[in-house]
Amino acid sequence: MKKLQENGQSVKVIPLGGLEQIGMNITAFEYGDSIIVVDCGLSFPDDDMLGIDMVIPDVTYLKENLDKVKGFVITHAHEDHIGSLPYILRDVNVPVYATKLTCAIIENKLKEFNMTKTTKRKTVKYGQTITLGDFRIEFIRTNHSIADSAALAIYSPAGIIVHTGDFKIDFTPVYGDTIDLQRFGELGKKGVLALMSDSTNIFRPGFTMSEKTVGKTFDNIFAENSKNRIIVATFASNVDRVQQIINSAGKYGRKVVIEGRSMVNIVTTANELGYINMPDNILIDIEQMKNYPDEQIVLITTGSQGEAMAALSRMAASIHRRITIKPGDTVVFSSTPIPGNEKPVSKVINELAMKGANVIYQDAHVSGHACQEEIKLIYSLVKPKYAIPVHGEFRHLTKNGEIAESLGIDKDNIFVLSSGDVLELNSEKGSVVDHVTAGSVLVDGLGVGDVGNIVLRDRQVLSENGLIIVVVALERGTNQVLSGPDIVSRGFVYVKESENLMEEAKEVIWEALDNCINNNVTDWSRIKNSIKDSLSDYLWKKMKRNPMILPIIMDV
Amino acid sequence: MKKLQENGQSVKVIPLGGLEQIGMNITAFEYGDSIIVVDCGLSFPDDDMLGIDMVIPDVTYLKENLDKVKGFVITHAHEDHIGSLPYILRDVNVPVYATKLTCAIIENKLKEFNMTKTTKRKTVKYGQTITLGDFRIEFIRTNHSIADSAALAIYSPAGIIVHTGDFKIDFTPVYGDTIDLQRFGELGKKGVLALMSDSTNIFRPGFTMSEKTVGKTFDNIFAENSKNRIIVATFASNVDRVQQIINSAGKYGRKVVIEGRSMVNIVTTANELGYINMPDNILIDIEQMKNYPDEQIVLITTGSQGEAMAALSRMAASIHRRITIKPGDTVVFSSTPIPGNEKPVSKVINELAMKGANVIYQDAHVSGHACQEEIKLIYSLVKPKYAIPVHGEFRHLTKNGEIAESLGIDKDNIFVLSSGDVLELNSEKGSVVDHVTAGSVLVDGLGVGDVGNIVLRDRQVLSENGLIIVVVALERGTNQVLSGPDIVSRGFVYVKESENLMEEAKEVIWEALDNCINNNVTDWSRIKNSIKDSLSDYLWKKMKRNPMILPIIMDV
Repeated sequence: MKKLQENGQSVKVIPLGGLEQIGMNITAFEYGDSIIVVDCGLSFPDDDMLGIDMVIPDVTYLKENLDKVKGFVITHAHEDHIGSLPYILRDVNVPVYATKLTCAIIENKLKEFNMTKTTKRKTVKYGQTITLGDFRIEFIRTNHSIADSAALAIYSPAGIIVHTGDFKIDFTPVYGDTIDLQRFGELGKKGVLALMSDSTNIFRPGFTMSEKTVGKTFDNIFAENSKNRIIVATFASNVDRVQQIINSAGKYGRKVVIEGRSMVNIVTTANELGYINMPDNILIDIEQMKNYPDEQIVLITTGSQGEAMAALSRMAASIHRRITIKPGDTVVFSSTPIPGNEKPVSKVINELAMKGANVIYQDAHVSGHACQEEIKLIYSLVKPKYAIPVHGEFRHLTKNGEIAESLGIDKDNIFVLSSGDVLELNSEKGSVVDHVTAGSVLVDGLGVGDVGNIVLRDRQVLSENGLIIVVVALERGTNQVLSGPDIVSRGFVYVKESENLMEEAKEVIWEALDNCINNNVTDWSRIKNSIKDSLSDYLWKKMKRNPMILPIIMDV
Repeated sequence: MKKLQENGQSVKVIPLGGLEQIGMNITAFEYGDSIIVVDCGLSFPDDDMLGIDMVIPDVTYLKENLDKVKGFVITHAHEDHIGSLPYILRDVNVPVYATKLTCAIIENKLKEFNMTKTTKRKTVKYGQTITLGDFRIEFIRTNHSIADSAALAIYSPAGIIVHTGDFKIDFTPVYGDTIDLQRFGELGKKGVLALMSDSTNIFRPGFTMSEKTVGKTFDNIFAENSKNRIIVATFASNVDRVQQIINSAGKYGRKVVIEGRSMVNIVTTANELGYINMPDNILIDIEQMKNYPDEQIVLITTGSQGEAMAALSRMAASIHRRITIKPGDTVVFSSTPIPGNEKPVSKVINELAMKGANVIYQDAHVSGHACQEEIKLIYSLVKPKYAIPVHGEFRHLTKNGEIAESLGIDKDNIFVLSSGDVLELNSEKGSVVDHVTAGSVLVDGLGVGDVGNIVLRDRQVLSENGLIIVVVALERGTNQVLSGPDIVSRGFVYVKESENLMEEAKEVIWEALDNCINNNVTDWSRIKNSIKDSLSDYLWKKMKRNPMILPIIMDV
């Protein structure tokens, strides 16, 4: 590993999550004795991470350099940017800097973990600059599917790095102003070392539509369904979307009911802080619904991703305590399925339609991420020396890199980084000089990191073929069978219909035990293996199945 | 349940699979003492059917009416239309009627099950009509993503039912002729009772592009990648697609390698029967690849859906024995992900891209299913009295129904059927008059139907939280502990790091045992429950986890 400059004139960019586990956004920036960390997201488990609740980053590198770490700087309040904070702050307890709504949502999260008192938080305004060690960080206004999103200009002695966060360009935003394009241009004029830009929608040509266009769609839906109850599912954190539903409700004389825990939480917070403009008396409690006819109600709910326990999914499955879907209900999915959620979303749509609901799931959503032309615009304003695409799978980052190249950035100055890569940059040169510990830590219940590959492999085997337990009590010393062998199975076959099979399996086990005795095998692990192998062979031949087989010997 | 006509002048349409388990296409038609069955497909398991290999239809109704069943009539050779045949023919051994290629692919399948001798098969030509009891069935030429696909005109004394099978309208097909639109028109003139039409692409406006357009895309890809090895992944059964890759290979002087078991099987069969036009010496064995430079090779492979064990996925994961992906390789996905496969496909794309391959996964595919205008065209030619949309989720079938209504079909004459519904039709009236046993049978290894809800629920619990086995040997009569309690866990925590936990768990178990003894509890099921409950409480409090707990008592 060669160092670019021994005198510390380079800045290091170290993604600690991201590419290997999409969504786990966390990047360390290091200069001299200062480290700052941008975002601290969590990721949802891959399909093969059975039973895992969430995935958080391995921050060994931060723990090993604890004295250097000055703070977390958060771009916006989505889970993939803040979700790991309660876990990581336990070990890396440094202040958190974010805009007002972002801070408030982080506070809600910290409350659940009883951590509000132990964590310092500081609210930063757009345009404001904070100093953290050798770094200064400026918060720049952007547009996104959650209010108060920010890009960051990270000033180091080695140069300025601009990090877009998640962003889009909305010329007619619902709340607040358009992304501060002038500031991006001004920074570009000063000279920017590197741009780290959102790659989520890099495959979509053109320009993402304004959030306001969805408001027109809602108006149309409300006009066309004036006789029906309307239920709209969307992302809880999309406060502007909720605002537009409320606006349409106001125009069309409907009361608004908010349903779903996270929807209630965020709407309450956003309302308290003034991010939602709520007409007087428009909001009613779900219990009051019965006092109004259907055509005077709109229900805003969670569940737009088909999440099994979310409010809309429970309504669709007829297990919601208070809402029963009935013919004539109009249900709007104001969302698009996140990759991987297509099937659960379809399931909920079909269930609602089977109950007679009119389900609208197209055209009532726009993305919160920039398309190709927007990304090109940011590159053209910022004109960085280096491009470090962020937020996306490998194919998204490389595509973003190709677009950067098409805009004149030197191919050698484009970096698609893996978790743990240490990219050293200065005005002369950029290169990956090292690799530090980084990666995924699995969270299962209260356990953080206690489920690893062996446990997951066992869960995989158990999930596919179930298990068979063979218990036998042997006399200490003589190895004579005192009790058993007994067979217990779970997740294998429906036992009542397979009594013959179990009888034959017992014979196979007896044979294995006899064989051991006849051959003077007294070592228990050999006896266990013998039981396991013969039973496994028998079941494969008989059924082409491979359950987990657990022989247990008790000595008495 | 009222019968429409007691004298048997109605024809019954009874879907035995379909809506509840998408892909399991099988429909019985009954008139008097005659039953014919159209298609016999299988479905792939839902996400919650852990360990299940496939899902086949419950044909109790056919078994109960075995003397009436005259034969299976198959529209085309996709798995969702033929896959259950080997299972169902065991119990319902009647002749199978299909076009030539369809018959040949069915024969390959029956060979695997050693059933070629016991099953009668009859090849039918387009335009030919077969008589089965009171029914006559005419095979009508269609276009689809597999050659030799047919629509069916099912003549009964109660009227004609037209079943489109899976279809599209291709005015410039690669093999054979355009769908026999004239015949659809002629039948419409005669008068058609009901149309059962494909709904797969009902949400797509317009007209599906011709298969030939993909050939032009291949030509472009071959021209632009003249220095690289080209690898194309597509559906094995899409013989026309394979043909077009071979055509481009011929034009650009490349040898063709076929890889992946199902690809080799189908290409061999299609070639033998003349469905592929293979230039002399163009096909080489995978072993001969080394004798040619990269720019003279195109590899046609399975794995376009990201299936874990398919050839392309193994190449991407570096576990293919003979092919190593290298920088410069051009990999083309000539396919689109089937809903639910988006994530595995993305994974393979990213893995290939990380190895330096240039991955093309857009624009090299067209659908094999009709879009809205094509479906409208068929309705307009056939002009049926009744519409019975088929092939799709509930939302697809209802949308198809809406389109039928917009074309002038009476709303009351449109039927979205569930599995087991008995729809009785005649020229006067149509209605669902009964419901028969129908549904899903799960196949796991060689076991058919031996895995039910209890087993699946156990697998679910095991997959999410693993299990803990508590074994204790009690003395017969006294219930004194002779050995144990021992704890064995799998899929729960990594035990080496959790020794403390296991020690504490043992104490909890001892306490439960002592409690039982002190309270004179001697009933083993109560002792087991006591162990289970206390351990469960302890683990939930300690870890917020719910493993399966299995107490086993041995008496000695």
